[in-house]
Amino acid sequence: MTKLVKSIREVIELCGLKDGMTVSFHHHLRNGDHVLNLVMAEIAELGLKDIFVNASSLFDVHTPLGEHIKNHVVTGIGADYISAGLGRAISRGIMEKPVEFRTHGGRPADMARGSSPVDVAFVAAPTADPMGNCTGKIGKSACGSLGYAFADAMYAKKVVVITDNLVPYPLEGFSISEDFVDYVVQVDAIGDPKGIVSGTTRITRDPVGLVMAETAARVIDASGLLTDGFSFQTGAGGATLAAAKFLKEIMLKKGVKGSFGLGGITAYLVDMLRAGCFERLLDVQCFDLDAVESLRTDPRHQEISAMHYASPVAKSAAVNSLDVVLLGATEIDCDFNVNVHTDSQGSIMGGSGGHSDTAAGAKLSMIIAPMFRARLPIITDRVTCISTPGKDVDVLVTQGGIAVNPRRADLRDRLLDAGLNVVDIRELKEKTERITGTPRALPRGDRVVAKVISRDGDVLDEIYSIPEMK
Amino acid sequence: MTKLVKSIREVIELCGLKDGMTVSFHHHLRNGDHVLNLVMAEIAELGLKDIFVNASSLFDVHTPLGEHIKNHVVTGIGADYISAGLGRAISRGIMEKPVEFRTHGGRPADMARGSSPVDVAFVAAPTADPMGNCTGKIGKSACGSLGYAFADAMYAKKVVVITDNLVPYPLEGFSISEDFVDYVVQVDAIGDPKGIVSGTTRITRDPVGLVMAETAARVIDASGLLTDGFSFQTGAGGATLAAAKFLKEIMLKKGVKGSFGLGGITAYLVDMLRAGCFERLLDVQCFDLDAVESLRTDPRHQEISAMHYASPVAKSAAVNSLDVVLLGATEIDCDFNVNVHTDSQGSIMGGSGGHSDTAAGAKLSMIIAPMFRARLPIITDRVTCISTPGKDVDVLVTQGGIAVNPRRADLRDRLLDAGLNVVDIRELKEKTERITGTPRALPRGDRVVAKVISRDGDVLDEIYSIPEMK
Repeated sequence: MTKLVKSIREVIELCGLKDGMTVSFHHHLRNGDHVLNLVMAEIAELGLKDIFVNASSLFDVHTPLGEHIKNHVVTGIGADYISAGLGRAISRGIMEKPVEFRTHGGRPADMARGSSPVDVAFVAAPTADPMGNCTGKIGKSACGSLGYAFADAMYAKKVVVITDNLVPYPLEGFSISEDFVDYVVQVDAIGDPKGIVSGTTRITRDPVGLVMAETAARVIDASGLLTDGFSFQTGAGGATLAAAKFLKEIMLKKGVKGSFGLGGITAYLVDMLRAGCFERLLDVQCFDLDAVESLRTDPRHQEISAMHYASPVAKSAAVNSLDVVLLGATEIDCDFNVNVHTDSQGSIMGGSGGHSDTAAGAKLSMIIAPMFRARLPIITDRVTCISTPGKDVDVLVTQGGIAVNPRRADLRDRLLDAGLNVVDIRELKEKTERITGTPRALPRGDRVVAKVISRDGDVLDEIYSIPEMK
Repeated sequence: MTKLVKSIREVIELCGLKDGMTVSFHHHLRNGDHVLNLVMAEIAELGLKDIFVNASSLFDVHTPLGEHIKNHVVTGIGADYISAGLGRAISRGIMEKPVEFRTHGGRPADMARGSSPVDVAFVAAPTADPMGNCTGKIGKSACGSLGYAFADAMYAKKVVVITDNLVPYPLEGFSISEDFVDYVVQVDAIGDPKGIVSGTTRITRDPVGLVMAETAARVIDASGLLTDGFSFQTGAGGATLAAAKFLKEIMLKKGVKGSFGLGGITAYLVDMLRAGCFERLLDVQCFDLDAVESLRTDPRHQEISAMHYASPVAKSAAVNSLDVVLLGATEIDCDFNVNVHTDSQGSIMGGSGGHSDTAAGAKLSMIIAPMFRARLPIITDRVTCISTPGKDVDVLVTQGGIAVNPRRADLRDRLLDAGLNVVDIRELKEKTERITGTPRALPRGDRVVAKVISRDGDVLDEIYSIPEMK
């Protein structure tokens, strides 16, 4: 018995993929991923139509999907994040059916609920054995954690492992085990190592970003949460990473022994682990090679599945034990609703990822954002798109002041006691508009191009097309 | 949010356990397990009736179940193995409903199929954190692998972790993760370390056993399978362990680099790993402290779930990649059907465990058994109970000759070429009966006390009560 299949084309046929079915992909190879494009090219060659692509995230490397959409090979897309290139095409209306945006926790939850069934999952595996035991920790395309792929392996009817490093059975230290895998295909390269590490995981050097980062660290310090057992997640944006750096300094100075760092893991969290700020890292996705190396070699740094990370239907997820999360925003409104899906023109250039999940789970969810970008204010009356509802957001840190959700009077008092510059979010909005002027209302197109599905499975918001350029 | 509950009684109430429901247990603490008795005592105290107990195995330590059966607290039992103490009571007819025997692979398969639903699973965890991440590798009651408990955690409606070593969140190196766990209860002791290590895992010193063991090793050597990449499982019986010792000598002498050792892992397999006979050990259950220590410290020694080990509904299981398994028998008939459920009086004293699973999966499944025990011949016309069907058994090794299943003429030829003493199984039976005399037909009672359910989910055989002593 072997599961080895000679080609991607052959495995698609063996899986019985037919018009109208759903295929799934995970995004640990990020902008270096070859697998989605290889598979979709074969699906197109085979003449299949009306395929739904359920990807944990889509990057600019996946722009060839645009062609498959035009040719009606792909007529449905589900993703937790879509980067600007493909996002712009979607916002201009290339899809007939709205894209389904989910969160990193909502995606496996909807698979578990049965509301998002997958016919064939393709797992890009940096190392695998011929029976499908696989890992991301080793191999020339090593990406570290395969966290998001566990749900695909568990819930898809057919599971195909695609690898460029086939090793003898049984693989040591497997992440996904053979009992979930139907077929294994060996290819020359599952990805381009240069693209697997994201360019976004560098610390900011922008003075405004550094001011916000330092303020964010002071907010955490003042929150009452920075005691032994502290747990923390930060996004991979420059200012949030800088905040981690300032936080580390405070923790070391105060001798705070934290419990765990969570999430997409970067070199900065690895550094905090090694410095003794944390006892553990729980890793659903590695953002850089330091994180990959740490996951491979340090037993305190542990891979977790997307369900373990953030699923709202799990018996519990790590986000439920999280003290503080630092998150970004493209817009935030006076009700603290946050948009991370669209840019200032209303064009898709992101998605929730774990934004909503961690905001819902953490004791303190903090948005770090400048008052304005390119002279456009961040604070609006109503965000273009609700990515994360305001009820789950505690505080906004800008260079011009800290706005606390009225729901969190306790937190506001603590920050005031610490001498921090707490301002009302409406005042902050007005202060910003005195600099930038009041922006014109964003014109929007007449079609819904995407639905934002909350982690609970309901439609949270809709994203409209952007109007034709005149 | 915490999952910590003060007592077993409270957790039973929180889980909503009601009359007629099913509870499940795993057996990694073997004859040292306290958890099943603690839980069942509370269930009895609470006045619940008509409970079905689904345990991966039951040992003599679980004899208090007899009282619960008499009191109608327990009216159904499912297990993969039941040792002689409780087995005798069942064979005498204390249960109204027949016991359901499954295999270690069939048990999780029936949970996955939905034909064996569990309401509340109790996981005995040597170490756990307050959210339910748990492991068997560390703690005063360390048992190593928790392999059989994974299915319970995945498929039960409610999952309770019971531990005597609660550590801060998040536990490093968890086996079962919090996303499957509803509640955690801390108790003084989940088991008695002395009973966790089985007394059966000692090598035989019996001269007949040693002859059979050496012959078994020679059969493997002659089988054509003993080449680089060789994989192997052996039971924990004295003669099969001795065979492993002889096999090791042959492998080292010939320089054979094996692939993996599988199964319930003993010190003997750990020794073979360290000696270079194998690259890996895949461990669903540790039989002794050397195995526990190796699993904890040697990354080549890896825990696997029962599904990964042996489930027939898994996409594949490790047993499918197995070259040779050595197994025992209380009876074998001329069609090579094997009984490991009942003793010479027809009384329950065992069960398939992984017997049927490995026999079905391995390229060579070998039974090692003496021609007779206590003057009762092993080879019969028809076994009292079919535990493993003859189609899955390749060869029988006794001290009086080697019988090859006629289905395996290729193997017979190889053994003859190697100068081994191959005999027809009927001749072996006659030869035995010339020594022992022809035994009287076993009188059997008139009630079915157990059903043997094959790994495919069908009823393979039935076990009858033993008649009243006159």
